[in-house]
Amino acid sequence: MLIKLINPNTTSTMTERMGDTARTVAAAGSKIILATSRSGAASIEGHYDEALSVVGVIDEIAQGETADAYIIGCFGDPGLLAAREITASPVLGIAEAAMHAATFVATSFSIVTTLERTRIISEHLVRSYGMQHHCRRVRATDVPVLDLEKLDSTADAAILAECQKALSEDRAEAIVLGCAGMSNLVERLQQRLSVPVIDGVAAAVKFAEAIVGMGLRTSKVGDLAYPLPKAYAGKLAEYAPAGLKLRDNINLAALATAVRS
Amino acid sequence: MLIKLINPNTTSTMTERMGDTARTVAAAGSKIILATSRSGAASIEGHYDEALSVVGVIDEIAQGETADAYIIGCFGDPGLLAAREITASPVLGIAEAAMHAATFVATSFSIVTTLERTRIISEHLVRSYGMQHHCRRVRATDVPVLDLEKLDSTADAAILAECQKALSEDRAEAIVLGCAGMSNLVERLQQRLSVPVIDGVAAAVKFAEAIVGMGLRTSKVGDLAYPLPKAYAGKLAEYAPAGLKLRDNINLAALATAVRS
Amino acid sequence: MLIKLINPNTTSTMTERMGDTARTVAAAGSKIILATSRSGAASIEGHYDEALSVVGVIDEIAQGETADAYIIGCFGDPGLLAAREITASPVLGIAEAAMHAATFVATSFSIVTTLERTRIISEHLVRSYGMQHHCRRVRATDVPVLDLEKLDSTADAAILAECQKALSEDRAEAIVLGCAGMSNLVERLQQRLSVPVIDGVAAAVKFAEAIVGMGLRTSKVGDLAYPLPKAYAGKLAEYAPAGLKLRDNINLAALATAVRS
Amino acid sequence: MLIKLINPNTTSTMTERMGDTARTVAAAGSKIILATSRSGAASIEGHYDEALSVVGVIDEIAQGETADAYIIGCFGDPGLLAAREITASPVLGIAEAAMHAATFVATSFSIVTTLERTRIISEHLVRSYGMQHHCRRVRATDVPVLDLEKLDSTADAAILAECQKALSEDRAEAIVLGCAGMSNLVERLQQRLSVPVIDGVAAAVKFAEAIVGMGLRTSKVGDLAYPLPKAYAGKLAEYAPAGLKLRDNINLAALATAVRS
Amino acid sequence: MLIKLINPNTTSTMTERMGDTARTVAAAGSKIILATSRSGAASIEGHYDEALSVVGVIDEIAQGETADAYIIGCFGDPGLLAAREITASPVLGIAEAAMHAATFVATSFSIVTTLERTRIISEHLVRSYGMQHHCRRVRATDVPVLDLEKLDSTADAAILAECQKALSEDRAEAIVLGCAGMSNLVERLQQRLSVPVIDGVAAAVKFAEAIVGMGLRTSKVGDLAYPLPKAYAGKLAEYAPAGLKLRDNINLAALATAVRS
Amino acid sequence: MLIKLINPNTTSTMTERMGDTARTVAAAGSKIILATSRSGAASIEGHYDEALSVVGVIDEIAQGETADAYIIGCFGDPGLLAAREITASPVLGIAEAAMHAATFVATSFSIVTTLERTRIISEHLVRSYGMQHHCRRVRATDVPVLDLEKLDSTADAAILAECQKALSEDRAEAIVLGCAGMSNLVERLQQRLSVPVIDGVAAAVKFAEAIVGMGLRTSKVGDLAYPLPKAYAGKLAEYAPAGLKLRDNINLAALATAVRS
Repeated sequence: MLIKLINPNTTSTMTERMGDTARTVAAAGSKIILATSRSGAASIEGHYDEALSVVGVIDEIAQGETADAYIIGCFGDPGLLAAREITASPVLGIAEAAMHAATFVATSFSIVTTLERTRIISEHLVRSYGMQHHCRRVRATDVPVLDLEKLDSTADAAILAECQKALSEDRAEAIVLGCAGMSNLVERLQQRLSVPVIDGVAAAVKFAEAIVGMGLRTSKVGDLAYPLPKAYAGKLAEYAPAGLKLRDNINLAALATAVRS
Repeated sequence: MLIKLINPNTTSTMTERMGDTARTVAAAGSKIILATSRSGAASIEGHYDEALSVVGVIDEIAQGETADAYIIGCFGDPGLLAAREITASPVLGIAEAAMHAATFVATSFSIVTTLERTRIISEHLVRSYGMQHHCRRVRATDVPVLDLEKLDSTADAAILAECQKALSEDRAEAIVLGCAGMSNLVERLQQRLSVPVIDGVAAAVKFAEAIVGMGLRTSKVGDLAYPLPKAYAGKLAEYAPAGLKLRDNINLAALATAVRS
Repeated sequence: MLIKLINPNTTSTMTERMGDTARTVAAAGSKIILATSRSGAASIEGHYDEALSVVGVIDEIAQGETADAYIIGCFGDPGLLAAREITASPVLGIAEAAMHAATFVATSFSIVTTLERTRIISEHLVRSYGMQHHCRRVRATDVPVLDLEKLDSTADAAILAECQKALSEDRAEAIVLGCAGMSNLVERLQQRLSVPVIDGVAAAVKFAEAIVGMGLRTSKVGDLAYPLPKAYAGKLAEYAPAGLKLRDNINLAALATAVRS
Repeated sequence: MLIKLINPNTTSTMTERMGDTARTVAAAGSKIILATSRSGAASIEGHYDEALSVVGVIDEIAQGETADAYIIGCFGDPGLLAAREITASPVLGIAEAAMHAATFVATSFSIVTTLERTRIISEHLVRSYGMQHHCRRVRATDVPVLDLEKLDSTADAAILAECQKALSEDRAEAIVLGCAGMSNLVERLQQRLSVPVIDGVAAAVKFAEAIVGMGLRTSKVGDLAYPLPKAYAGKLAEYAPAGLKLRDNINLAALATAVRS
Repeated sequence: MLIKLINPNTTSTMTERMGDTARTVAAAGSKIILATSRSGAASIEGHYDEALSVVGVIDEIAQGETADAYIIGCFGDPGLLAAREITASPVLGIAEAAMHAATFVATSFSIVTTLERTRIISEHLVRSYGMQHHCRRVRATDVPVLDLEKLDSTADAAILAECQKALSEDRAEAIVLGCAGMSNLVERLQQRLSVPVIDGVAAAVKFAEAIVGMGLRTSKVGDLAYPLPKAYAGKLAEYAPAGLKLRDNINLAALATAVRS
Repeated sequence: MLIKLINPNTTSTMTERMGDTARTVAAAGSKIILATSRSGAASIEGHYDEALSVVGVIDEIAQGETADAYIIGCFGDPGLLAAREITASPVLGIAEAAMHAATFVATSFSIVTTLERTRIISEHLVRSYGMQHHCRRVRATDVPVLDLEKLDSTADAAILAECQKALSEDRAEAIVLGCAGMSNLVERLQQRLSVPVIDGVAAAVKFAEAIVGMGLRTSKVGDLAYPLPKAYAGKLAEYAPAGLKLRDNINLAALATAVRS
């Protein structure tokens, strides 16, 4: 099974870190292909960074080898529904995967994330995924994403402290880490906190294997059907659906005709 | 990995059918142990049947070999939280697993279940799992659970017809099958319907493997902590927590003392 | 009018205490019959204790004199819907009754309960009963249920302190006591707090009288219809619906035939 | 126990009808006092009629004998919170009482009401009382309120037909009648429909007895505290709180001073 | 364009203050007519004051010059739906306008209001207007409404302090002022707080101009249709719909006949 | 006042149509600048089209004359929050504006939109904007967006028919048109339907004028603060925040430093 793990930001050291986590949990038969977005922001810390990261995510799905599943490795799950339109292979977001995983092992969880300004993005996802009753609170540490790459321990200490507050103040029973860049902290945090600590990268890899293993593919009826063939203009002209080298060998024009009739 | 699949009703032919599905999707390294409840109803079709099925579910977890994960193989997920209290190994319900799986491949789904009277049980689970915005409707076929065991095709036809209504009337983009006894219908339905058809048994097996593969175990902080040691009386005296042969080698009395201090 | 008040735990001193409260508020024509569960836990402090308490609750409804109404005297309302299936006489839970009562005399309330681990059970009931906008917060005192039976005043002081926090921090306008074992504290707390303090036992007795007085009986259409006749196996064989000495003189087999036709 | 049943519209024949229902269900020790609003609309069929009915409701509470409880006999529960401010005796609305009663005997209900234009008023109450998951649908018959007073059976037939649709289409398990003027239909409908049919007048009388029997009075902390003493001008000058002959012998001015300090 | 700004309390100095705000923001072609309620409370600080203020609001709409739009200048939006029934000219509440305005410039806001007892009124409006996810918290200052008229700065300081808490504790990104009497504080608060501060009077004036500018008028289908012609009795006899000098030159009796046919 | 109306699709005839509507409702002092996206899809009919349209929206805000407000002229409101980050001038989406406008003149509305596959996009917005209780239903006509440009009347007839169903089946009291390309139909539909028909383009223009007229600008505290300065790579390198010619003369680097300290 080929799983393509896409880092929607352009920082390859972060991709490598995610890759380490992914390979650690992957099943024997799973091959993880790493991809770092080739366009957009070095870190995603707001609606603007996130909206522009979708182009890079789409590039990685529309190009190269066909994967059995794709993972969007940023806790905002940027471009998730758009990505699901252009392939029938399952596409998973790491925020989505982490929250779903948490509900299997705890009645409640809190999310510990990076900058305060990204907290609202997580709160929107909590509602969108129906996790309002499971998620006690989204907590920001105000640690910038790229500080997670540094060797010093200030960021780690801030994250640990916020997790401890989640346990004592929110009475959370599990912790969801709100950034792909935190995936290397799982083990240490779990030892310190004695509750499940959930990293979205690991969760997405295992759930991708699970969904593929069930033989499920993205529904092509309704809003996730392949994009309708139409003209695209300007610097995005190459993104016209009919021109996309869609991995699924789909003839979009024929499909659209069929759908209309 | 040892996964114990527990049928909370006492009909062993249904257990066998679930077992077939489970083994078909299980990973190479997973061993499925089947268990049919030894007490309670031949089929679970209401709150009463369901409430009494919990005893049999607990028996299967508290006895025999220790499993790495447990699956409760009835679409009402009976005893799920109670079961999670008595072991740190992950416990999954098939309704829970099926609904979560559906959200990874479709924006919306409808549930097609058995008797009208069980529809409310599914509706409660939909709310409890935060699936209100994903689940368009719960549809009953009024096929009794044990009719699913018969060889004639009346039940199958009724289920197919209800699935088709789910697509045309609810505009559902995926179907969740609302009974473990329907797990052998998945392939045929999927071919007829051209949308993802999700069976909870398969979903629970794959998600159990996934959760174990992430190294996650049930949180023992909060409501899912081991039951407090205390006296149990009468015909349930043997269920006193301290007497349970808990698979996790936990000394409940010591644990309780520690928690209090 | 005969009202059977069932204590789902096996501690008869707690039953007596509930009985005192019940008799104090009961109308002249009401006769309260007390029953202490003969199987299960000495106190109910978690999902496991609760799930196993249902057997004892069902025993008390299926046996002895027929009552005009039944009350389940534990704040988790264990087995409420199962109990409603096996009799047409109204069955009330004390959590349900207390919360409904609170809404008639205050715009908001907080629940003050026992162990932290039971808080989630109350929170689930709050949502299940549609009380999210009325209930400001569920507060745990970490007083074990059976400590409420002791004569010393430590538990009482802890409960009073938590109630006071509910008023000052949550701005609650009424207090709902989250354990049947607290029913003897109502008067003292009300004097100290100057807000309505609601005990579920009293509320359930008065609402049972009210429902019976309206001539209402449990709906036998839909999910609360009598259980379908079917085989029950093993140690629960005697619970097979057809064998239940149902108080309502219902011939379940005939009924089921009628329903199917 | 003195229970004052206030008809917020000015049609005394409707008051008499409610009175019949109330007296039929009232306990031996309860005395029902009937009051017909002396100002406002002959029937309440919209927001405008309803808003203006509050004056008459307040008049009936602020005048005459002090009652142990008050009932507002219109399915929109007009002026409920305002009424609760000016007395500590419990005040119940019939919509509120009917919906709460329904939840004790059925998992779901539908409301059958009068004019289509009043449906939204009921829908607002459903949300306000947290009944969204219990109430399957509000159904209008387009029978004007005062047609319920006529002797011919057209209105009755329309109501019965709509109730039947509620059972077959909504799968409702109980019916809540959405107008005080329907209270005389309960028995006939219940016989025809074989499900609980709930009339708010009966429910409110029995719940008023229950609340008084529990010793509960309206919380005077928070939004339901007595109105602050202040000047009232113009044709409503007599409604200035300090001038109200409040039944509770409260000195509002002194109270307000106490509250501020 | 004629916009009638109605102060539902009887304090004309407050009307003047609102008028200043209204005229400051009004477009060149808009004429603001001020009206102070001629009956009811000097300030509206609870359900009782609010319910009785509706009479005065209706008087101002049913009398005098016909306006193109009406504004109800009290943060509880008293009588909003009743007012919408009696005219097709748009009617706006200032709470409604302020909350909607806030969502256009911030993802979240907190409301800072007067007395603690009015907080629940605002919380009800938040839910009623669908603002639960935008409104982080309603904060009371316990400043009485009429203290806002005084020249000393105690009230202002209390309001500023509460706004600052809204930013630091609630992480609100905008402030909604919860009383028409605070409209003169907007500028000063905005300078101090560096976030949008929204006053409902200004918002309602601009949105009234906008709605009129779009050519929209209140829907006369459904619950906001003109009141049905019927008898009104007692001191409210003059409010009978047929007798109302409705600004819209509507013949209610003819209309009702048409609707019925 | 300068209002820039951005068509996120690349079809300039649709921009012209929107412009006609915008100019018709704009106030005397408002100048409407039209912009057609220079990159992306000719019509936006799915998540993929929508996600890629954000680039063109951002281009139009980051370039050219500074506007006092921006309008995103597509009913999915693509890029709304991203756009709000890069300018303090208010940015409005037409779906958002239309739904808010509807709540001022009707208690309920239905949305009539284009392709079935876009229905889910509207349903997400309904929830995101808190309109669940106002919006009765989203109805798709299966008219492709660009068919709205054709001269024949097939599309118009389909839309009228669906609006009529919204009135009779959903009991909607107003219609919200779910596509910018329908803005020329408003007048005709309103005449035929006799309920308010709301077009988002007109609503957004008037609300933009209103928000600017209140002196409100987008909150720069929290998630809508200017994007943090950071490197952008590849084909999106020019979108690095520090390099954006932001209309607000903001020095992002200095700002970020200030925020951190």
